[in-house]
Amino acid sequence: MTPDAAMRTREPLPLTAVTIDDRFWTPRRELIRTRTLRQQERQMRRPGQQFDALTLTWRPGDPHEPHIFWESDVAKWIEAASHCLATADDPDLDRAVDEAIELLAGAQQDDGYLNVYFTVVKPGQRFTDLRDAHELYCAGHLIEAGVAHFEATGKTRLLDIVRRYADLIDTVFSPDGPCAGGYDGHQEIELALVKLYRATGERRYLDLSRRLIEWRGQQPYYFELEFQRRGTPGYFGTTLPRRPEATRRFREYNQSHQPVADQAEVVGHSVRAMYMYSAMTDLADEYGDDRLLQAVQRLWANLTTKKLYITGGMGSDPSIEGFGPAYDLPDAHGYAETCASIGLVQWAQRMSNLTGHGHYIDTLERALYNGVLSGASADGTHYFYGNPLASGGTVARQEWFDCACCPPNLARLISELGRYVYAQGPNEAVINLYVAGTGRFTLTGGEVTLRQDTRYPREGHLAVTVTPAGDEAEFTLAIRIPGWSRQPAITVNGEPVHQPILRDGYLTLSRRWRAGDLVEIDLGLEVRRTWAHPAVASAAGKVALERGPVVFCLEGVDHDGAVHNLALPRDVPIRAVPDERTGVVTLHADATADTTAGDQLYVSHSPGRRSTALTAVPYFSWANRGLSDMTVWIRDGGPSAAPAPTAPASEHGESPDGRS
Amino acid sequence: MTPDAAMRTREPLPLTAVTIDDRFWTPRRELIRTRTLRQQERQMRRPGQQFDALTLTWRPGDPHEPHIFWESDVAKWIEAASHCLATADDPDLDRAVDEAIELLAGAQQDDGYLNVYFTVVKPGQRFTDLRDAHELYCAGHLIEAGVAHFEATGKTRLLDIVRRYADLIDTVFSPDGPCAGGYDGHQEIELALVKLYRATGERRYLDLSRRLIEWRGQQPYYFELEFQRRGTPGYFGTTLPRRPEATRRFREYNQSHQPVADQAEVVGHSVRAMYMYSAMTDLADEYGDDRLLQAVQRLWANLTTKKLYITGGMGSDPSIEGFGPAYDLPDAHGYAETCASIGLVQWAQRMSNLTGHGHYIDTLERALYNGVLSGASADGTHYFYGNPLASGGTVARQEWFDCACCPPNLARLISELGRYVYAQGPNEAVINLYVAGTGRFTLTGGEVTLRQDTRYPREGHLAVTVTPAGDEAEFTLAIRIPGWSRQPAITVNGEPVHQPILRDGYLTLSRRWRAGDLVEIDLGLEVRRTWAHPAVASAAGKVALERGPVVFCLEGVDHDGAVHNLALPRDVPIRAVPDERTGVVTLHADATADTTAGDQLYVSHSPGRRSTALTAVPYFSWANRGLSDMTVWIRDGGPSAAPAPTAPASEHGESPDGRS
Repeated sequence: MTPDAAMRTREPLPLTAVTIDDRFWTPRRELIRTRTLRQQERQMRRPGQQFDALTLTWRPGDPHEPHIFWESDVAKWIEAASHCLATADDPDLDRAVDEAIELLAGAQQDDGYLNVYFTVVKPGQRFTDLRDAHELYCAGHLIEAGVAHFEATGKTRLLDIVRRYADLIDTVFSPDGPCAGGYDGHQEIELALVKLYRATGERRYLDLSRRLIEWRGQQPYYFELEFQRRGTPGYFGTTLPRRPEATRRFREYNQSHQPVADQAEVVGHSVRAMYMYSAMTDLADEYGDDRLLQAVQRLWANLTTKKLYITGGMGSDPSIEGFGPAYDLPDAHGYAETCASIGLVQWAQRMSNLTGHGHYIDTLERALYNGVLSGASADGTHYFYGNPLASGGTVARQEWFDCACCPPNLARLISELGRYVYAQGPNEAVINLYVAGTGRFTLTGGEVTLRQDTRYPREGHLAVTVTPAGDEAEFTLAIRIPGWSRQPAITVNGEPVHQPILRDGYLTLSRRWRAGDLVEIDLGLEVRRTWAHPAVASAAGKVALERGPVVFCLEGVDHDGAVHNLALPRDVPIRAVPDERTGVVTLHADATADTTAGDQLYVSHSPGRRSTALTAVPYFSWANRGLSDMTVWIRDGGPSAAPAPTAPASEHGESPDGRS
Repeated sequence: MTPDAAMRTREPLPLTAVTIDDRFWTPRRELIRTRTLRQQERQMRRPGQQFDALTLTWRPGDPHEPHIFWESDVAKWIEAASHCLATADDPDLDRAVDEAIELLAGAQQDDGYLNVYFTVVKPGQRFTDLRDAHELYCAGHLIEAGVAHFEATGKTRLLDIVRRYADLIDTVFSPDGPCAGGYDGHQEIELALVKLYRATGERRYLDLSRRLIEWRGQQPYYFELEFQRRGTPGYFGTTLPRRPEATRRFREYNQSHQPVADQAEVVGHSVRAMYMYSAMTDLADEYGDDRLLQAVQRLWANLTTKKLYITGGMGSDPSIEGFGPAYDLPDAHGYAETCASIGLVQWAQRMSNLTGHGHYIDTLERALYNGVLSGASADGTHYFYGNPLASGGTVARQEWFDCACCPPNLARLISELGRYVYAQGPNEAVINLYVAGTGRFTLTGGEVTLRQDTRYPREGHLAVTVTPAGDEAEFTLAIRIPGWSRQPAITVNGEPVHQPILRDGYLTLSRRWRAGDLVEIDLGLEVRRTWAHPAVASAAGKVALERGPVVFCLEGVDHDGAVHNLALPRDVPIRAVPDERTGVVTLHADATADTTAGDQLYVSHSPGRRSTALTAVPYFSWANRGLSDMTVWIRDGGPSAAPAPTAPASEHGESPDGRS
């Protein structure tokens, strides 16, 4: 198989071809550019932190020993800033990025090597702790930053730096190089190398990516050989496990337990998994590799039917920041790292563009509007690392982390949003996300601009105006219809489309388009009650509320008591009310709450109930009003709306007409 | 205040005055003596483990560096074995104990000091890391062992050893000694010194205990002075925290955040708390100290109304093995260390004997029959450290732990059971626990033997036969009536007692008793549905089953699906069925289970329901039949018993007659 066999049906529009002018997203993106990136830069410029480390002046015995993954923080920040610079004129940010790039240039060694930790802390030990020391992971993020900076600004300074580094890695990891058979413990470079190949046309980067993916999980296991060779513990004090169960976990942790093309269950560290599956999808595409395609399809099915939170979060086992068994999705005590949801967004886009299926974008939206957005505070300066689905009121976002992977990762995704809104096939203009603004397509039928007008996700109406470069153009317009939209109302130039062609999750309109042609869609944004598979313990007897792509939650601050005491009857109407200032929609319903009966912990009579007003807020907005308890899964009150406020033995189960 | 002011109303019978001949307890106690203690001895005799360490032959660089708390394992094992030897003739065990004692004798230094770690690993650093190194904690367990061995066997060898050590500690911790103002990070020695005082009559041990308790929490904080003095991290790498919140946790962790007599909320490490409250109760008693009494009463109320699991477990925060906020009682992700429930049993007995109130014994039984007994497997050789109230099927007991505090602690409690069954006041014979066997009382009215016949907790009937030493004796017989017993039926010599005197939780019968007088009580062991305070999130919308002192749970192995899918209607009868071989009672009822509807994780229709047979087993017996999911809190199905197997939108809330 060769790269010429690329099987993808679509590819994203470049950032420079997209504008975003959206009530929901534009303020969030401006916040990233004007506050978040500045706050992150300040964090990394503190004495002894990321920027200082790049000066290579640290010496043994000095405080602030450089962390192994600090380059990745800087790189993700540069990448996020570059995405901003692709569409925004921001000389200050441009200058700050250039300054950071010069620091990286100064830290690069003569042979192209670029890693602070193995230059000043552990010189002479390059590529000897691939499992734990994040060396190629950092390289991957540097490469992504180089590509993004080049694509956004046209400058080649960072791209040249990372190419020299990638060339060195290509030699070290060549089939007869010193690290033949090896790969990184934290996948990331694999997808980065595909980007580098696409930006430069240099085939050897793609082949290197493929080697790293193909070597992974082969026997004898590289990481075990590495331990034996080195004879000392890994970076985090890791040693080779002895018990078979521990060995299995040791291998699964970074998805190196079996050849990746044979894998069928999502296991181990979630972020590593998402990055690896993304690279596998890219390689399936570039090489037309059916085995890889089948693998990622299997893994996708396993993830989405067994191990994905309703918020698009994943990873139920905090001890490995990763996956537990099937259906193991604890609400308050799970993990759901922001970075993992970001990784899912990246993977989902690749799956959709490769296969042409819209349902991947449904999952992308689930992650984007919930598990990703919840990762940052409304003011853009505080972050969640884990995003639990319930809280006892002790969880708050933090300003920074020792392992600061999530904050710049979130910044780069939101600032890169334009790449997720549209896609194009040979003669097909695709709208994946409802985001007001424009996309400029280069199709075989000519150049075309689409303009979206929408107040999504507040409202479900979308207007698409078509503007061909010439008078008209013949092409297919594909607009994704989310799976939850039951009966979308569609018009073209005001005429109802009674029998729309819905294919693979897309409304498909093939015609000769003229300037000003207008497609309108009303998705119908009803509030949806959603239940989990009965095997999910944390959701048993409970219901979640969704509206469009937004998952809702209850916060204690809106209720006169703990949120777990609220029960939502099945037959009460739920009103969606937008906040006129922020556009954020909240939900309101009549519900019941358990009442306390004295001071005893355990009693022989069931709790009483009272009527109460239930308010649900978008999950992405939680924890912005002080410490408060929270739950996504709401107790399912059954069909009865009539509470029995005083009779403790009969508070459940009244029939709707009040008989019992 | 002086020790002469002792305020206790009752004290336990010595082990030598009690026999146990009980269908429930005797097999468990024999298992401890014949299997558990042997298995624990084998663990500690492994090369490089506890027994080897006591030879003091370890040298820096050798493998198996002695742990800081290994003496406590040996001491608890000796104490447990001693309790067995008080009533059982077991020459092998006697010999093994004597051998261990000689190892301790050999490890004792000339000045009486006895701690392996600070003799061979960190010589010259005695009493410099009181917060973390468990030095006085180990001393306390050695003292308890010395007292128990003396009381059981009359031998003074170990008692003499620990007295010499206690004398040294008394000097070091004298008001003008080098450690004046200090105390241990893990309370334990305080209650041990009270025992040593009671066994020897040496007042200075009691005064030392009081000093340690009174110094605790005074400012400036001793542990912070200690860190500053030492200038290096504590044993576990602990350093002085800087943030105020961390400082508060640092102090609360070992209950040294404020003077103990001022404390009102149970916080920090649960086992340390239980041992400290026990010592405070002892000291309140011995010194007639009302402030201490009020403190332990406040703390008791806080524990039992805010922070106690229904199983008598406690400690919801695994990161500190200790207490979280009020009502924070997560089921699957809590802690509930076996040792903490053991500590509660010890404290509850002291509270009851000090105040004469029976409700403390209700809590003692809750802990004993549930959170303590669940700590060991049915075969007596595998242990739980934490005892969660729910499990996804991944939790199993282990044969041993690096920190092996729980296994010998459980052994010593069960082997010491006789001390908890009875108590005596000046002219009052008290039955606290229903355990078949005899207790010999020495009352002002003469010597009296009570014989209990009962199949408790399988059945609720108790027969007490009175045998005075002479023909008759005038005294008060007080038999505890558990709070859950609604209308106990009482007869004396076959005559119903229609208006029994129930005082402070005891049936009180004052009369001239003759040999053969027979008191019979039927407690009425109905199955009880129990609800938690609405503030307990993990129990919201759920119900627990109890019968007598036993809390029940559902295990997956008894059900054709996950236990969280079962819902128990309120109005179905629950049948209690004893196993004829083991006597263990299981509960059976008609319930409903959610049914799966396809492969999707999240759907827009509620799950269906089917009828199913529910089987509940005693919590103490769980995890004895392989890995299986489990829950104590069962979904409360409301009043309807009629499932609606096919109508997904109406599975809840039918009225009892089937209308909806």
